[in-house]
Amino acid sequence: MIFIDVCFKKKTPYTPIWLMRQAGRYLSEYKMTRQKAKNFLGLCKNPELASEVTLQPVDILGVDAAIIFSDILVIPMEMGMGLGFYEGEGPKFDSTMRCKEDLRKLQTGAFKRTQYVYDALKITREKLDSSKALIGFCGSPWTLATYMIEGEGSKTYTHSKRLLYKDPSTLHTLLEQLTEELKQYLEMQIHAGANAVMVFDSWAAALEKSAYFEFSWDYMKQIATYLKAKYPHIPIILFPKGIGAYLESIDGEFDVFGVDWGTPMESAKKILANRFVLQGNLEPARLYQHSSMVDGVEKIFEVMQDTPFIFNLGHGMMPDLPRESAIELVKIVQQKRIS
Amino acid sequence: MIFIDVCFKKKTPYTPIWLMRQAGRYLSEYKMTRQKAKNFLGLCKNPELASEVTLQPVDILGVDAAIIFSDILVIPMEMGMGLGFYEGEGPKFDSTMRCKEDLRKLQTGAFKRTQYVYDALKITREKLDSSKALIGFCGSPWTLATYMIEGEGSKTYTHSKRLLYKDPSTLHTLLEQLTEELKQYLEMQIHAGANAVMVFDSWAAALEKSAYFEFSWDYMKQIATYLKAKYPHIPIILFPKGIGAYLESIDGEFDVFGVDWGTPMESAKKILANRFVLQGNLEPARLYQHSSMVDGVEKIFEVMQDTPFIFNLGHGMMPDLPRESAIELVKIVQQKRIS
Repeated sequence: MIFIDVCFKKKTPYTPIWLMRQAGRYLSEYKMTRQKAKNFLGLCKNPELASEVTLQPVDILGVDAAIIFSDILVIPMEMGMGLGFYEGEGPKFDSTMRCKEDLRKLQTGAFKRTQYVYDALKITREKLDSSKALIGFCGSPWTLATYMIEGEGSKTYTHSKRLLYKDPSTLHTLLEQLTEELKQYLEMQIHAGANAVMVFDSWAAALEKSAYFEFSWDYMKQIATYLKAKYPHIPIILFPKGIGAYLESIDGEFDVFGVDWGTPMESAKKILANRFVLQGNLEPARLYQHSSMVDGVEKIFEVMQDTPFIFNLGHGMMPDLPRESAIELVKIVQQKRIS
Repeated sequence: MIFIDVCFKKKTPYTPIWLMRQAGRYLSEYKMTRQKAKNFLGLCKNPELASEVTLQPVDILGVDAAIIFSDILVIPMEMGMGLGFYEGEGPKFDSTMRCKEDLRKLQTGAFKRTQYVYDALKITREKLDSSKALIGFCGSPWTLATYMIEGEGSKTYTHSKRLLYKDPSTLHTLLEQLTEELKQYLEMQIHAGANAVMVFDSWAAALEKSAYFEFSWDYMKQIATYLKAKYPHIPIILFPKGIGAYLESIDGEFDVFGVDWGTPMESAKKILANRFVLQGNLEPARLYQHSSMVDGVEKIFEVMQDTPFIFNLGHGMMPDLPRESAIELVKIVQQKRIS
């Protein structure tokens, strides 16, 4: 698998490419499958349908990796928090985790109740071409914790930050519990057929540097260390969004660092490429316009010349981006042969 | 004025401090004045009341500078866009600027219709202690443009980015028109008594590096160059929020660079302090907890030792932060005498 080879810095005939949120509403096929599932959570919980949307971008775009269709919030949900997805509003929990007493309501062993994810992986791995990688994933402990503390998405992270500065030990307790669940969750995904795993730290930028390393990065590293010791052949991708101002301090036992579009690829290369393989980082909005997209691709290849990397967007596909751009993007990248 | 002295790298007896959004809902006095004004825009448009809330934090906290109470959106409003502020929702325009035809509806000379801002400055400068500086401000062309394009606040900036990549010349036209208004607007604020001016680029982080310099920073620099040539004794503060990943590329004719809390002060110092005075950058959430606040202050002073700077938060005061913390913060900073 070209994707896996690059993760281990092996030479490949071309630069592998996949797109974050490549299974999504910009594809009419996705919308049709989603209708069958009635709602978003129904789609996550139905292994056949989840597998169907996972495979769609491989068929339509020809990307080098599929990422299992699911949501980072299934873990908090299976810890006992009622979860709903509301059109135009995003996810909402029916409770919040803001003090020690709240945490007592959480159930352990959530990773044992996500058989639907493992089943989706199994079905997908069987159907997926053997040259393509299947990626499993989870949210970072910090990102999940903030959702659980706020009860929903947030712009200000008020409750999470109040907890962090006023009662850090409670936050650490929550993060530790999440970390244990996520280690097992990713391990089970590997057993179910994932060829690589990725941790999304979508809300990394909510924290100042010192808090970031204490409350987020250290927990991500724990997950990576645990998996790396047991599954050295499985690449681990960490993606902390929005911490480009302090890449110097990044360390840990993992293989691939996901670069968001706010971080210039030059800086990421200069600071991190001697230790990690980079994945990224086209600004998704460039897909609105063909020439902007082509320019963006050229710039990334100029920066990354002679350094193996994984081509991706610097953030997820947006619902209103044209599918033709995505198809074209994959073609352009894969046609650049490495001599 | 200690604040002005530091802006020009002069030695001062202590490090001056003010807090972004220091006039705000965390003060009961502010809420009382705001009630008199009926609504937020009424407060902006009433020079007496705007002056009253501008002066409150000087009296209550003892900060070294007052920033005139107003809103960055008065300029687009006076360009003819109907504006409302809705409780819990934020600002909304009654139209959007998304194509060349939309732009034709905009009226020039908005800066002539903001006499209420100049009057508020005049009243405030008369009442303000002569040792304290009065800061005027505006939003950056890019930040104002995105509000005008989206019609309201946004998480994804979809319309702005689509315009940027599909029809950059229309966006440039809008940015040029805004830049002209803002030059005059800040100039009039200086004439009305502002001792320093600040440009807030609150949505800087919406753009990737190359787009940032083309569509935001270059316009901010134009404003600074214009003012610096005419008013060399008036310090100019630029505050682009969230671009800590590429400070190396910052240049221009201005005096003070505002550092957000997501950018480590060490990096800002290393990269920028030989050219600009820094202002920042305490994480406001540290004010939830006394010990976190004190730790944060100590860290900043450790980094900045021997380098004159302006102490501030790395973002605005939040409504639920305790006023006692703000009072204490100002005291701690001002008590550190510079020998």
